[in-house]
Amino acid sequence: MLDLDGLTPFLDRLADAAAAAIMPHFRTSPDVENKGEAEFDPVTVADREAEASMRRLITEAWPDHGIIGEEFGVEKPDAAAVWVLDPIDGTRAFITGLPVWGTLIGLTQRRTPVLGMMAQHFTGERFAGNGTRSWFTGPGGAADLATRACPSLHEAALFTTSPKLFPGHEQNGYDRLEREVRLARYGCDCYAYCMVAAGHADLVVEAGLQPYDIVGLIPVIEGAGGSVTNWSGGSAAAGGRIVASGDRRVHEQALEILSAVPG
Amino acid sequence: MLDLDGLTPFLDRLADAAAAAIMPHFRTSPDVENKGEAEFDPVTVADREAEASMRRLITEAWPDHGIIGEEFGVEKPDAAAVWVLDPIDGTRAFITGLPVWGTLIGLTQRRTPVLGMMAQHFTGERFAGNGTRSWFTGPGGAADLATRACPSLHEAALFTTSPKLFPGHEQNGYDRLEREVRLARYGCDCYAYCMVAAGHADLVVEAGLQPYDIVGLIPVIEGAGGSVTNWSGGSAAAGGRIVASGDRRVHEQALEILSAVPG
Repeated sequence: MLDLDGLTPFLDRLADAAAAAIMPHFRTSPDVENKGEAEFDPVTVADREAEASMRRLITEAWPDHGIIGEEFGVEKPDAAAVWVLDPIDGTRAFITGLPVWGTLIGLTQRRTPVLGMMAQHFTGERFAGNGTRSWFTGPGGAADLATRACPSLHEAALFTTSPKLFPGHEQNGYDRLEREVRLARYGCDCYAYCMVAAGHADLVVEAGLQPYDIVGLIPVIEGAGGSVTNWSGGSAAAGGRIVASGDRRVHEQALEILSAVPG
Repeated sequence: MLDLDGLTPFLDRLADAAAAAIMPHFRTSPDVENKGEAEFDPVTVADREAEASMRRLITEAWPDHGIIGEEFGVEKPDAAAVWVLDPIDGTRAFITGLPVWGTLIGLTQRRTPVLGMMAQHFTGERFAGNGTRSWFTGPGGAADLATRACPSLHEAALFTTSPKLFPGHEQNGYDRLEREVRLARYGCDCYAYCMVAAGHADLVVEAGLQPYDIVGLIPVIEGAGGSVTNWSGGSAAAGGRIVASGDRRVHEQALEILSAVPG
């Protein structure tokens, strides 16, 4: 078994390393490249330097652990403990200067997410959790994180990356859901999940996620009392179509709509 | 003539008063009411207390000045100097915990915006300008604001509140524009205009704005080297359909598309 309490301070060490690599490049003119051909997918120097820094720390401290990262791929994916890293989740927010991107750090034990953190280095906020407890540090001090009650979709504040980015059937499912909620907000990536964990919003719905987009957030939301699953109600750890919520009642109502979307 | 240099420090006094009224209510459970019937339009206690505080300061310091505010309406609108206040622009961001709302403070001289500030009290950022110079204070220190070069729509980063909130013909115009740009981001209200002023984004397009949504931002964007007009290229001070840009070339290209939209 992993010593999760012993590993928890390591989250902050990794986030500190990421901050040191990233912040000199925030609100400057970073080298933005096109990673894919079809789509605009910005990657910055900051992204790569931050992941390299975190990988060095992990390899030094825990040579037996595996690593999955957005920028540099997979090492020892079958290790009992695997770190899952996204140095800058929300690259579009990053390159437009907005403080709603974050560094995502997750730890899986036999493929189950057990520890996670989202660190926003401009505001100095960190949202972390271990699946049974979640906590915040940042402006205003430290606090435990807890989701809020929300009995029905009609009262829910929903986040998604963009209301237009769902392909085909997924778009129809998302549109049906959006019509049911009290308000919808777009474009906050990892920050949206943390607002659910902190009790300021109720629901996040996305599709097409990679494992590194979600693994670090699962222990934060679950530790705050919320739920994260795929659109069929199964494990979210593999990415894909994701729904995260603060109140199980809203989660079930969202799944009723989303699980009807063809696979 | 107004002594603008003498009035400039008063922007910070107003923002300080707004911060003191607002921040105790941020990320708590504010009293959210429905102001309108048809649409969700959140208003918080913080909103009203902040505007009341700012109005008291103005009335004490400048009894001859007029005031237009979102919450408490119009006083002396025909005065030579009129303050235009939106205590919380971006109420949806505010109630979902995001740090991309702001207090907007504008000063008009014979209906022309001459001084303005956007203050984000959680991050501690202030973006201000007087039409010929603009400046930032906040994390990382103080700096002048300058828009960035962007020769064409195809290279532009565009912001709008929501890609779905435009009615009728305006939606078609917006959609045509969005297809031309490099990337589009949604949901940042006043913060988006400040990212244009600071050179991190290139274009903001919105419709249905009130004067208090835009007056405080016009001197900031113009002072940083950018442009703000309505979709016909005329004054933006009355609100309505607004386009703001950092580079005049992009502004003209956006107007070519948007000015074709029926009024």
